[in-house]
Amino acid sequence: MSDAPARRPGRRSGPTVSRGDILAAARRLFAERGYDGATIRAIAQEAGVDAALVHHFFGTKEQVFVAAMELPFQPADLLPQLVGGPREQVGERFVRLFLALWRDPERRAPVLALLRSATTNEQAAEMIRQFVTEALVTRVAGALGVPPLRVTAAASQLIGLAMVRHLIGVEPLASADEEEIVRLVAPTIQRYLDGD
Amino acid sequence: MSDAPARRPGRRSGPTVSRGDILAAARRLFAERGYDGATIRAIAQEAGVDAALVHHFFGTKEQVFVAAMELPFQPADLLPQLVGGPREQVGERFVRLFLALWRDPERRAPVLALLRSATTNEQAAEMIRQFVTEALVTRVAGALGVPPLRVTAAASQLIGLAMVRHLIGVEPLASADEEEIVRLVAPTIQRYLDGD
Repeated sequence: MSDAPARRPGRRSGPTVSRGDILAAARRLFAERGYDGATIRAIAQEAGVDAALVHHFFGTKEQVFVAAMELPFQPADLLPQLVGGPREQVGERFVRLFLALWRDPERRAPVLALLRSATTNEQAAEMIRQFVTEALVTRVAGALGVPPLRVTAAASQLIGLAMVRHLIGVEPLASADEEEIVRLVAPTIQRYLDGD
Repeated sequence: MSDAPARRPGRRSGPTVSRGDILAAARRLFAERGYDGATIRAIAQEAGVDAALVHHFFGTKEQVFVAAMELPFQPADLLPQLVGGPREQVGERFVRLFLALWRDPERRAPVLALLRSATTNEQAAEMIRQFVTEALVTRVAGALGVPPLRVTAAASQLIGLAMVRHLIGVEPLASADEEEIVRLVAPTIQRYLDGD
């Protein structure tokens, strides 16, 4: 029911509604066409707005996805933190950043929701697979000069950590101290990302 | 509406129906009371049979659970394969056995179903958490003399491997050769299980 989102000074809720409309349209399109198949143009069309407005509100398709899924991070912003700094501490940086993302129940809720969708819905799994590949795996592999297989191995350890710690909740990992987890898991990630 | 499960030579489907009835009752009880809370006696009562019959058909509570969830392995049978053999190859044995369990789509389907339940249903997660703790973590930790935290860390890597390879399906891990996965992941499991 929302109409054109052009700025109307007399109607305060106008732009707010449009942002929500665009994100709802984006969620539908990503679910239907996958991350690769949904374009900014198609999302704009689905929302009944101009593509320029989607760009103006959110930026790139990746940023639209992050906003639509309410992810607590922008992959492009994380990359410098991960790949910058001493190469021999890259494993520790990955684990610390990952633990920080999962620490706060409100921040991890949308990531948990995505993980749940991936396990129960093949269409959602496809969308998440494409996003993870493009926004995370390919980018980290390129930035570190590491084969993508090794990046996905590192991802598997971190995703498994989230599963066992937060989703299944197996003790003593579920309530282990973060520093203890860093000591245990950082060498794993380091080894994967050190390459052959 | 199955009745008493006593052997009746003239009624071929009798015992078969009883097995199914008992497993259905077990699934209800495990879901309602968790793995710890469901007893053989309660399962028998729920199924309307004698506890001795449940023992006769399935054995221990752990074996009832495995049959009810259609798991492709009995933890008690796996243990000798895992902890027997050279200690410096324990990581490789875990990874090879895990890959073998997940190789066949029919065998992995019930494990995937459990993993899905754990991610979407807190009651199911509780049940699985208790089973994993008792049947796998505590037992492996005891047999290898390794702190349970290190066993759960190893479990997190293996569960993450299954998630990324079979549930989300991120390439190139999803279609990587098993030998390549052994080379990548076995040293991780070995390090966790080597202890401090």
